[in-house]
Amino acid sequence: MDLATLIGVIAGSTVLLAAIFLGGSAGIFFNVPSVLIVVGGTLATAFIRVGMSDVFNSFKVAMNAFSVKLSNPQEVIQEIVNLANIARKNGLIVLEQQPINDPFLKKAIMYCVDGHEAEFIEEVLQKEVTLTVERHELGQGVFKGMGDSAPAFGMIGTLVGLVQMLATMEDPATIGPSMAVALLTTMYGAILANLFFIPIADKLALRSKEEERNRQLIIEGVLGILKGLNPRVMEEFLETFLAPEDRKGGQDKR
Amino acid sequence: MDLATLIGVIAGSTVLLAAIFLGGSAGIFFNVPSVLIVVGGTLATAFIRVGMSDVFNSFKVAMNAFSVKLSNPQEVIQEIVNLANIARKNGLIVLEQQPINDPFLKKAIMYCVDGHEAEFIEEVLQKEVTLTVERHELGQGVFKGMGDSAPAFGMIGTLVGLVQMLATMEDPATIGPSMAVALLTTMYGAILANLFFIPIADKLALRSKEEERNRQLIIEGVLGILKGLNPRVMEEFLETFLAPEDRKGGQDKR
Amino acid sequence: MDLATLIGVIAGSTVLLAAIFLGGSAGIFFNVPSVLIVVGGTLATAFIRVGMSDVFNSFKVAMNAFSVKLSNPQEVIQEIVNLANIARKNGLIVLEQQPINDPFLKKAIMYCVDGHEAEFIEEVLQKEVTLTVERHELGQGVFKGMGDSAPAFGMIGTLVGLVQMLATMEDPATIGPSMAVALLTTMYGAILANLFFIPIADKLALRSKEEERNRQLIIEGVLGILKGLNPRVMEEFLETFLAPEDRKGGQDKR
Amino acid sequence: MDLATLIGVIAGSTVLLAAIFLGGSAGIFFNVPSVLIVVGGTLATAFIRVGMSDVFNSFKVAMNAFSVKLSNPQEVIQEIVNLANIARKNGLIVLEQQPINDPFLKKAIMYCVDGHEAEFIEEVLQKEVTLTVERHELGQGVFKGMGDSAPAFGMIGTLVGLVQMLATMEDPATIGPSMAVALLTTMYGAILANLFFIPIADKLALRSKEEERNRQLIIEGVLGILKGLNPRVMEEFLETFLAPEDRKGGQDKR
Amino acid sequence: MDLATLIGVIAGSTVLLAAIFLGGSAGIFFNVPSVLIVVGGTLATAFIRVGMSDVFNSFKVAMNAFSVKLSNPQEVIQEIVNLANIARKNGLIVLEQQPINDPFLKKAIMYCVDGHEAEFIEEVLQKEVTLTVERHELGQGVFKGMGDSAPAFGMIGTLVGLVQMLATMEDPATIGPSMAVALLTTMYGAILANLFFIPIADKLALRSKEEERNRQLIIEGVLGILKGLNPRVMEEFLETFLAPEDRKGGQDKR
Repeated sequence: MDLATLIGVIAGSTVLLAAIFLGGSAGIFFNVPSVLIVVGGTLATAFIRVGMSDVFNSFKVAMNAFSVKLSNPQEVIQEIVNLANIARKNGLIVLEQQPINDPFLKKAIMYCVDGHEAEFIEEVLQKEVTLTVERHELGQGVFKGMGDSAPAFGMIGTLVGLVQMLATMEDPATIGPSMAVALLTTMYGAILANLFFIPIADKLALRSKEEERNRQLIIEGVLGILKGLNPRVMEEFLETFLAPEDRKGGQDKR
Repeated sequence: MDLATLIGVIAGSTVLLAAIFLGGSAGIFFNVPSVLIVVGGTLATAFIRVGMSDVFNSFKVAMNAFSVKLSNPQEVIQEIVNLANIARKNGLIVLEQQPINDPFLKKAIMYCVDGHEAEFIEEVLQKEVTLTVERHELGQGVFKGMGDSAPAFGMIGTLVGLVQMLATMEDPATIGPSMAVALLTTMYGAILANLFFIPIADKLALRSKEEERNRQLIIEGVLGILKGLNPRVMEEFLETFLAPEDRKGGQDKR
Repeated sequence: MDLATLIGVIAGSTVLLAAIFLGGSAGIFFNVPSVLIVVGGTLATAFIRVGMSDVFNSFKVAMNAFSVKLSNPQEVIQEIVNLANIARKNGLIVLEQQPINDPFLKKAIMYCVDGHEAEFIEEVLQKEVTLTVERHELGQGVFKGMGDSAPAFGMIGTLVGLVQMLATMEDPATIGPSMAVALLTTMYGAILANLFFIPIADKLALRSKEEERNRQLIIEGVLGILKGLNPRVMEEFLETFLAPEDRKGGQDKR
Repeated sequence: MDLATLIGVIAGSTVLLAAIFLGGSAGIFFNVPSVLIVVGGTLATAFIRVGMSDVFNSFKVAMNAFSVKLSNPQEVIQEIVNLANIARKNGLIVLEQQPINDPFLKKAIMYCVDGHEAEFIEEVLQKEVTLTVERHELGQGVFKGMGDSAPAFGMIGTLVGLVQMLATMEDPATIGPSMAVALLTTMYGAILANLFFIPIADKLALRSKEEERNRQLIIEGVLGILKGLNPRVMEEFLETFLAPEDRKGGQDKR
Repeated sequence: MDLATLIGVIAGSTVLLAAIFLGGSAGIFFNVPSVLIVVGGTLATAFIRVGMSDVFNSFKVAMNAFSVKLSNPQEVIQEIVNLANIARKNGLIVLEQQPINDPFLKKAIMYCVDGHEAEFIEEVLQKEVTLTVERHELGQGVFKGMGDSAPAFGMIGTLVGLVQMLATMEDPATIGPSMAVALLTTMYGAILANLFFIPIADKLALRSKEEERNRQLIIEGVLGILKGLNPRVMEEFLETFLAPEDRKGGQDKR
């Protein structure tokens, strides 16, 4: 798990737990039926929405997003420029023996080595990017959906509790504690959605965008290699994909 | 009904019923007038929104979505590649006698056999896909609309109950039970929307997307057959429609 | 008014009225000042939003949507195919004397008869469709706007009532009835928005989409006539605009 | 100020004031600190959002929208058709001396007279339209933003009031009036947003759309003049920009 | 910090602090645990959403947006027109020695001097604009995300407080103050979101749009220089990027 996420999850949980334990009566905050309503209801609707395998897939995708690192775009640019230099000197065929780190770049280079036309290669790679983005959107959709369901089931649980409390209101002394229990599901739902599901969905969206940008960069680079562009010009062009402070070439040289 | 949906519906209902029955006074939760307001109001607005036949159609479409299985894209690719091989050896005409499982693929092949131009075929098939997506959106719209109406009528029912209770507030002992009843419609609306209507609308959207992707795959494949593309190249291209782990050709061979 | 809408409006009103009258004290639910705040405020903002004539226009448009029937697309296809057959045999000029039901089709055919170029005709008809859709969006916008304003003025009315009640809270016995009255505006706003304004806006949107589809169908058909397409091919192509179960040609013949 | 807006503002304010004064204790509804929180907070955030000059600009734009009348599209079409007739007989140069009411049309004609190419003229005019729409969106954005801020600061004010009331709750008799005052900010925020800011933002959007349509009409017309189109054909084409009932040519002649 | 923002922040804070201090018991409004829940939870989720470096980056970007001034478009147009005049007389190469204020314009001119083709220059600059907009969107996204999280954690904090209060409700006299404390987190969340995070996100969006417009203007201008357009015509064209009242050329000369 990457450091920021770890810090985020720990810090977020800590402030909530601190608030709960400093308040004195921490025991009241843990209530198994309330957990069951919120977690059970949220999972149940996720199953209806997308099917079981996609729910588990999304959890796997989310795990990946937090542990596997994306290729660094600067390094990918270096790799592409190196390949362009080699291709210029020794021809495209030699690229087959080069070690290539990024799997998408490797695949793209293989298409070049196989002698497909530039147009075909661009179409296949572009379609791959589009369809990968769509698959990622499914994963985000699962978490966004759970981010909608959790507060809804929290509210449903609270309504169930309120109805029970109101229907059998005999001893006024029990009203407070009963209502506290009823409110727990709303609290669980809000925490699950706002500390976990929604930020994770956002993280997946951000990550998908970064991966897409990396791949667009690779497609531009590989097309440049096929066209036999000057590697220095290509580097300058590919560096527009980086934030200004991450560029090494271009305007600094002037 | 597919398994995940069944599990989802059963699990979701179970946690709610458990919460209700474990609370002791389950009787209070079932109230015919409250059901009538929420279900009646939701159906009534659906009738105004899209007309009767579209409401019933949507229920049929939803039933289908949960019971009929879509063609598996891997099998469709296999089928297309087989057809491409046959067409290469024996010409397009022979395809007429091939058994074809997917109805959309069958239709597309028939257009080829009939000797229409590639451009016309692409236009007709593409328009068919666009218009099918629009028809599916109508179905999703009905469920999304009911997902909006159910909580709204839940709230209206609760307001009616509160006004009645407040206007005739004489014996404080009746306040609790009256308010419990008033809250029931809100609870019904929330459950209907969040456990059924919204997840079903999402399911239909997902399913429509999958069907659209299948059909795009078929269009690409049939156009490839018409152009006389190499079946192996075509397979590699069509496999970009699959998730990486479902592909058999392409990079694994290397 | 078409049947489904009638059923919807009656059924929706009936369940609400039943809930109100079965509760015993129906008199409390009818309060003239509350009606004035919600209806007056909603109309007032509609006037600010779009001007008076557009508000009244929208009501007229909505009335039309519920009473005038659209041309049935199957019949329009039949009409176009007939015209295509006639034009094939006797030339375009003869079409002038044909009786044509759909006014948009009639207009399109007149352009053909007048000898305009296909490109000009397509541009004019397409622009007409785009601008008609924009005009319809204005009508939907009025109802969507009222669907937003009605609950807002309901809440404002309730706040006014609550402030009055709280400021002069002397006899606890009057709290209940005063609060009941305060809640009425919220209830009125919710009913107006959810049973009328929002479903009507949705209906107008759906209707606009259907009309647009009809007109696209007509444009395609008329362009086909101008190109001298084979009427049978044209029928097959135009039938992609229909749901599969409404088609008579195409795959069934096989 | 156009009549509908005036009626809308007066009618909306009247129903609210009637509700307040008929309730008896009108004095309680006017509270200077509450006004300051809502109006001050709303203006303060508008300053942060877009800067001072844009806030004041938006007010000016809104004033214009309600007082200055747009060119009537029918008259603009007449003007264009006249110019087309003159240009046909006496050449483009003569147009310089024609009196032209609409400033955008005047500008477009000047470009023609200056001898620029049709392509350049279309590009400049189209860019002008796009950038005008963007400037209008800024104005709408200011009002939409205030429509979001006002209820938010209303809620913040109520929370401040509630905290003060709850923290010093000694004499139960003061609870009612304190809470009434606390609720006032929520009411102010709701009224400001729903009776003024949101409808004005909608009005500006509608007006911007109408102006854009007018300008598109002028661009089409001027390009037609440059191409030397038949004025009668041009009129028929430009009338597609009007609602069917506002057209004088076209289908009625038949 | 620009003046409007400063005024906005000071004015917004002043009205809130005035409301708090005039209410008498200002002490109750400052509660360290409540601050920790809202600020801690909001930051924690921001870390999960985008990672630490992006959170800090966004704060830096926001600081910049409020302190660094954008190039004034009128001056940029003057600069471009001057360069165009020089290039016309002495050729493109001479531009290298001209002092150029705007860094993006400087970069674009360097590409021209380097002898790249117009097409390549347009592609690189356009891609740079697109990717800069995407980077800005990340910054806005961080603030928008915090604008969503702050009220959510405010509500969570209030729920924690309510549960504690209700579970241990013994002395009715403590209910008021406990509830006041519970409501504080909701108030903090609302203030943070509505006075800071949301307006800042809007400001960044507006600023990003202005910068994009400036850069589009520069791209058009540099392409004009490359094509050797007449500087006077170019000025007239570039002035469409300005609001009518900021233009000096064009229609006023007539």
